[in-house]
Amino acid sequence: MSGHKLRVGFVGLGIMGQPMAGNILRAGFSLTVYNRTISRTEPLKDAGAVVVDSPAKAAAESDIVICCVSDSPDVYHVVLAEKTGIISGVRKGSIVVDCSTAAPEVATKCSQELGKKGVSFLDAPVSGGDAGAKAGMLSIMVGGRKEDFDRARPVLETMGKTIVHCGSSGAGYIVKLCNQILVSMNCLAVAEALSFAQKAGIDSKAMLQAVSGGAAGSWQLSNLGPKMVADDYAPGFFVDYLLKDLCITHGAAQDLKVPLPGTALAETLFRAASAQSFGREGTQAIYKVVRGLQRQQVS
Amino acid sequence: MSGHKLRVGFVGLGIMGQPMAGNILRAGFSLTVYNRTISRTEPLKDAGAVVVDSPAKAAAESDIVICCVSDSPDVYHVVLAEKTGIISGVRKGSIVVDCSTAAPEVATKCSQELGKKGVSFLDAPVSGGDAGAKAGMLSIMVGGRKEDFDRARPVLETMGKTIVHCGSSGAGYIVKLCNQILVSMNCLAVAEALSFAQKAGIDSKAMLQAVSGGAAGSWQLSNLGPKMVADDYAPGFFVDYLLKDLCITHGAAQDLKVPLPGTALAETLFRAASAQSFGREGTQAIYKVVRGLQRQQVS
Repeated sequence: MSGHKLRVGFVGLGIMGQPMAGNILRAGFSLTVYNRTISRTEPLKDAGAVVVDSPAKAAAESDIVICCVSDSPDVYHVVLAEKTGIISGVRKGSIVVDCSTAAPEVATKCSQELGKKGVSFLDAPVSGGDAGAKAGMLSIMVGGRKEDFDRARPVLETMGKTIVHCGSSGAGYIVKLCNQILVSMNCLAVAEALSFAQKAGIDSKAMLQAVSGGAAGSWQLSNLGPKMVADDYAPGFFVDYLLKDLCITHGAAQDLKVPLPGTALAETLFRAASAQSFGREGTQAIYKVVRGLQRQQVS
Repeated sequence: MSGHKLRVGFVGLGIMGQPMAGNILRAGFSLTVYNRTISRTEPLKDAGAVVVDSPAKAAAESDIVICCVSDSPDVYHVVLAEKTGIISGVRKGSIVVDCSTAAPEVATKCSQELGKKGVSFLDAPVSGGDAGAKAGMLSIMVGGRKEDFDRARPVLETMGKTIVHCGSSGAGYIVKLCNQILVSMNCLAVAEALSFAQKAGIDSKAMLQAVSGGAAGSWQLSNLGPKMVADDYAPGFFVDYLLKDLCITHGAAQDLKVPLPGTALAETLFRAASAQSFGREGTQAIYKVVRGLQRQQVS
């Protein structure tokens, strides 16, 4: 397989990046990794990855350089920083693939700057959480040139199940924001239905059983509804991460002049969740905010 | 089967009622039907049902009397009207089953009044649309006494697949309102995601493909997303019917003192859809309202 000849760099070994990089390595690609906190590189080093001390060095050894960090400023830093950034090490003809969730203009800027060096950029955010990352079952939404998508695909296939070329540069970021619009409103809907049922004295489990299989059904209902009922707020996806994504959505909607009233409301309530110190809990903690509307007192 | 000895009455042969009654008849129950517009009774008469000219007469011939009408006032009229209502004909020991979507207090009032005659009441609203009604695949959410639920079950099983006893009187109505909270917000979420994607110049089909299988997935996304993309507003479920259900939800939320910010917003936007003359289109017409926010001009 020609894909196996590709040398891969990976920058950013967080909750998502570490299992994603592990899957690339297991699929037989040679892998060079960089992470700000070096201790997180050890499991990959033990498994055969080369560890380097800058994104630039990871890029210098690779045909495909993947990064997976938190927010737009982090992407700019990792990709474009003078001396240490990917752009300082990457060789002509390579492809930089950003799996972070960032603003659409990040794709414009990165593809412009990298383009000057003959390097391609793909925005390729992922969905599916750490469980999906571990299982290699992520959804990957890719923006950029089709020929770059096709070249990067063998590597993406080690990390994900649903891999879709969504359009030109920035389309991947946009589609990920669409994903978060849906996630946030569907999650709020579950919280409101449960809050209503609970106040009416209905058995919440019976409610979930009765409605989950029909037109009211959703991934959020099936997966987070039972957690809300059990008051289990262990994080699958942090409130603060979703809030960050909704802020990016807000900015993009502002730039595009697209009114999104439901998304704006969801953002407000997830901000309340963060303000109420649920930022490092799972997004199902929105249920506590919605129930809290019934009884919150300002002292 | 002891269930087959039950004689069934059916009042209200609309889009939902007609196929539901047909399934009861096909399952071998004897059936007496009443409908305000008598022409709608003909297919059932041809299939062996007895047609009568009042709900009271349908009730007089039946052990289980089902009604399926539009709104709380219709339920009151059909069940409680002097002389012509079910209550005037129904015999002691029978069960009245209301499959309409009505306010929780309708269950309280009907079970009280019928109880004086030794007759039970079950609130048993359904979900699944006319397709689900035809296929006998409805979800049925039932409130009332467990022993009445058990007695009515053989008849309910001819109409539905998921039949859940949700709790005491009124619990079925409440759970149906929970269903509509979820339906309305999930539908709005799809409209916002598509509006955002479209304004950003993204191929909407690629977006749907990329996000439908993951945490953003929902029945609304899979079923109404493609219709929105195709500008197909043919009704599965009328905007005006959902709006009616959201008004009932609003009243119940007011009575229960449960703030439901997302549901209130969805109600407002479905009201806009109705105001913009989309009331007899499918609920996916909310997409036109959301897109219209970008360009609406008051002349």
